[in-house]
Amino acid sequence: MENLNKHIEHTLLKQDAVYEDFIKLFDEAKEHKFLGVCVNPLYVRLTKEQLEGSGVKIVTVVGFPLGANKSDVKAYEAQQAVEDGADEIDMVINVTALKNKDYEFVQKDIETVKAFCADKPLKVILETDLLTKDEIKSACEICIAAKADFVKTSTGFVKNGVGAKVEDVKLMYETVSPHGLKVKASGGIRDKETAIKMLEAGAERLGTSSGVKIAAS
Amino acid sequence: MENLNKHIEHTLLKQDAVYEDFIKLFDEAKEHKFLGVCVNPLYVRLTKEQLEGSGVKIVTVVGFPLGANKSDVKAYEAQQAVEDGADEIDMVINVTALKNKDYEFVQKDIETVKAFCADKPLKVILETDLLTKDEIKSACEICIAAKADFVKTSTGFVKNGVGAKVEDVKLMYETVSPHGLKVKASGGIRDKETAIKMLEAGAERLGTSSGVKIAAS
Repeated sequence: MENLNKHIEHTLLKQDAVYEDFIKLFDEAKEHKFLGVCVNPLYVRLTKEQLEGSGVKIVTVVGFPLGANKSDVKAYEAQQAVEDGADEIDMVINVTALKNKDYEFVQKDIETVKAFCADKPLKVILETDLLTKDEIKSACEICIAAKADFVKTSTGFVKNGVGAKVEDVKLMYETVSPHGLKVKASGGIRDKETAIKMLEAGAERLGTSSGVKIAAS
Repeated sequence: MENLNKHIEHTLLKQDAVYEDFIKLFDEAKEHKFLGVCVNPLYVRLTKEQLEGSGVKIVTVVGFPLGANKSDVKAYEAQQAVEDGADEIDMVINVTALKNKDYEFVQKDIETVKAFCADKPLKVILETDLLTKDEIKSACEICIAAKADFVKTSTGFVKNGVGAKVEDVKLMYETVSPHGLKVKASGGIRDKETAIKMLEAGAERLGTSSGVKIAAS
């Protein structure tokens, strides 16, 4: 089912990954024709070298996974990633400011990063595990105002977190799709059944480290 | 036991902390005369305003918690934090490079950050949960060569991680203390008994979010 594979960002973000893990990730992404790979920013250059000409997109993360960095630092990290060859940037929202209803800060944080992404799509990770439904909706509205390209559910790094939930993906899709933004579901997507449910709920992209299992099943 | 409190860095790094949590942290740090507080870099300015004149040190984190950022980005984050008023910088080592025995990269990563810390002490978080004893020892030797000021056990963000272990703190202390570096134990220190064990094993500093409980017991 090549169609499903074209929604998958084959993801390797764990802290103790070794070089062999990256090479395996690249080989699998090429073999299964996944849409992209998602790696931490230090590894964008290596990924660029290894995936040159493959058509596999390079996705990286900024302010990851806590989002509690200064906007300038997030923006600098995004700029460096784009220079190194990243095709798309997934930044983490500032959850503290969102919870304190400091929406102006949240929007400006996203806009600051967006300004350094050149023409590359910017996804904003909301970290839905930590948010109420109202907070998810507010975050989506801020992302619309800040002209982000995607809203994304999760980092996958919340302790005891579930990751993407069908109901959250639906809420995000209903809120952002009339404004042209798309949804990336990520965290806890480990089998084909879950992957298909996320697409049916409105996700355009799936962030998962189980891409090969999903592709094969 | 004020003596114990003078080793404690009262820590608030969770992603969904709200402003009230920070105010509580500052009040508690002043009340118990903790050595310092440890917050994410975005909150250094707020902390500086609130702790002005209190004598409580401001500690922040860089490349946190994955350490998989470019050295330049870590260095820029450190520089910004120092400008904002941070007294000490806790950076995360690159675990991938360490595991691949790319010691030159690991050392240069630390030196790059150190160059932007002005005269502020630099602690290097090894993330001991993910390392073998040999890797912990190698990391300590690299920190000596890179002229770091402290080695620190843990971020507290490893899934199913234990955090500081007495045996790791001992190994770190034995390796670095002849060269003048100190040890910070962090992660999983939730009671006075554990706190004292860590000090006995050679820790000079304790990073914990249970400081008030430790102080009161």
